[in-house]
Amino acid sequence: MPLTTEFTHLLAVRHPIALAPMGGIAGGALAAAVSNAGGLGLVGGGRGEADWLDRELALVARHTERPWGVGFLTWAIGPEAVDRALARRPAAVMLSFGDPAPYAERIRAAGALLIVQVTDLDETQRALDAGADVLVAQGTEAGGHGGGRATLPFVPAVVDRAGPRPVLAAGGIADGRGLAAALALGAAGALTGTRFQASREALNAHAVGQALIEGRGDDTERGRALDIARGGDWPDRYTARTLPNRFLEQWRGREDELRGDAGALSAYRAAAARQDPDVVPVWAGEAVDLITDLRPAGELVRAMAAEAEGVVGRLGRALQ
Amino acid sequence: MPLTTEFTHLLAVRHPIALAPMGGIAGGALAAAVSNAGGLGLVGGGRGEADWLDRELALVARHTERPWGVGFLTWAIGPEAVDRALARRPAAVMLSFGDPAPYAERIRAAGALLIVQVTDLDETQRALDAGADVLVAQGTEAGGHGGGRATLPFVPAVVDRAGPRPVLAAGGIADGRGLAAALALGAAGALTGTRFQASREALNAHAVGQALIEGRGDDTERGRALDIARGGDWPDRYTARTLPNRFLEQWRGREDELRGDAGALSAYRAAAARQDPDVVPVWAGEAVDLITDLRPAGELVRAMAAEAEGVVGRLGRALQ
Repeated sequence: MPLTTEFTHLLAVRHPIALAPMGGIAGGALAAAVSNAGGLGLVGGGRGEADWLDRELALVARHTERPWGVGFLTWAIGPEAVDRALARRPAAVMLSFGDPAPYAERIRAAGALLIVQVTDLDETQRALDAGADVLVAQGTEAGGHGGGRATLPFVPAVVDRAGPRPVLAAGGIADGRGLAAALALGAAGALTGTRFQASREALNAHAVGQALIEGRGDDTERGRALDIARGGDWPDRYTARTLPNRFLEQWRGREDELRGDAGALSAYRAAAARQDPDVVPVWAGEAVDLITDLRPAGELVRAMAAEAEGVVGRLGRALQ
Repeated sequence: MPLTTEFTHLLAVRHPIALAPMGGIAGGALAAAVSNAGGLGLVGGGRGEADWLDRELALVARHTERPWGVGFLTWAIGPEAVDRALARRPAAVMLSFGDPAPYAERIRAAGALLIVQVTDLDETQRALDAGADVLVAQGTEAGGHGGGRATLPFVPAVVDRAGPRPVLAAGGIADGRGLAAALALGAAGALTGTRFQASREALNAHAVGQALIEGRGDDTERGRALDIARGGDWPDRYTARTLPNRFLEQWRGREDELRGDAGALSAYRAAAARQDPDVVPVWAGEAVDLITDLRPAGELVRAMAAEAEGVVGRLGRALQ
């Protein structure tokens, strides 16, 4: 008996679980594995780099017959990235971090659903105004980029504003307990990143999986230093949550100094080019505490759904 | 059909809801109202100021026959505050922010349960080592003082470490959806502050209730400036979440400068003495979005419990 919600109905998926479109990490194989297991696989299109997108979208389309989608960094893309994705007939396009309005009509006209990720109440209003079909309310405990609200109180505040539109909860959810909690808050499902990053199909270096298994939520931190070093032009309002590394230990709290230190920036880029673990970011959410193994993504979807169904049964028995 | 948990059994209360012992705000009348409605009322003993404690504990003991308790700031008290409370025969003593070990034996020997609030995994281990009977896993979205973990991923991480000991979730919970989410995460109940601060019985100035009704979760912030100004010697690791005010706008990010500015500190104290709303902190958690009225605390307990029971019923129907 799967848990059905407005999201499973709207997207025609079996489980109320979506893969966070982690840029460059959620490739076509991972997205297809999530979709084949009954979730919604979202390819991490990031800034819309054409070759990567062509390759990974071809992969997902080849490996699943189920609904799948693709996500972009709204502030970093132009219409051509969206058109390139729409040409592959995704069920949904997800836009995160920026104003979705310029792309909304184009996405709907192509018959895809528009999913918009929001990190505060103003972004929530903007997403509703743009006509988002699904909102993702992302909390600060999420791995990678995000804002400052925490998932548990943010989700019901978004649900109260979203009316009939389904809301997914994101940030801090890595198992069926988190999924069941999301549903209790009024969300129609959960969008999960870090847990799927620790899967067989994620496009990570091997060291990243191990770091996620060993990492503690207490140790994760939000900051800007790595984005400054990577030269990514990220809008200041979005920080990134990672595990600590030597580079962060050196530059934490000295971001302005780093910005002006050409030597340090070029040393970073040289070290990053050889994948030096002292500098390369390991994006990780606080739910990393709940990750103890690398598993096939399809197994993760099924286990998360089954655990959530078990939690709902347990709660029912607590009513007495 | 109330939701029963290990917490409701252990404390012999009807609902898995506890009042956060907000120092100076959760007085005897508020604690008694929560206990009379079937929750666990906890008087906010703060630093253990003797006159306040005597007055408010006499009040709670007079106004309820149900179990009630008292909470303290662990780092700020000595054994005499605990003894003063134990003399009134509370069902539980809650210790927050500091090492509970020096008081654990004394509390248990008096027949009270020891509740320990934790804000990270190291504190969790310390609380377990001290023999806590109940843990409160507090997330950073909580109003007032706290740490950096977010409730949703922190609670299951604490539950996994706590074994059979019941865990309450705290931070970001202001309605039955949040309570049901806490139970889904494996908690045995929720401890709620801000929502009860916006109650008829809380010891606030009238302006505070109105500020909580109007405040947005997006606007709340964690910081140290107000503690520096108040001269409270709070350990650096705990910041306080409040609504913004003019004093914070002036000093945010300039905490070290404030510490050395005798003129500013004395101006703060003069303004605080006349309850100037530009300087007095309004403690508020991110769940302030969900607060739209001031209500009697007993009504809040009953409404939160009934809504959580309804959520559990709705989740059961989603299993199909």
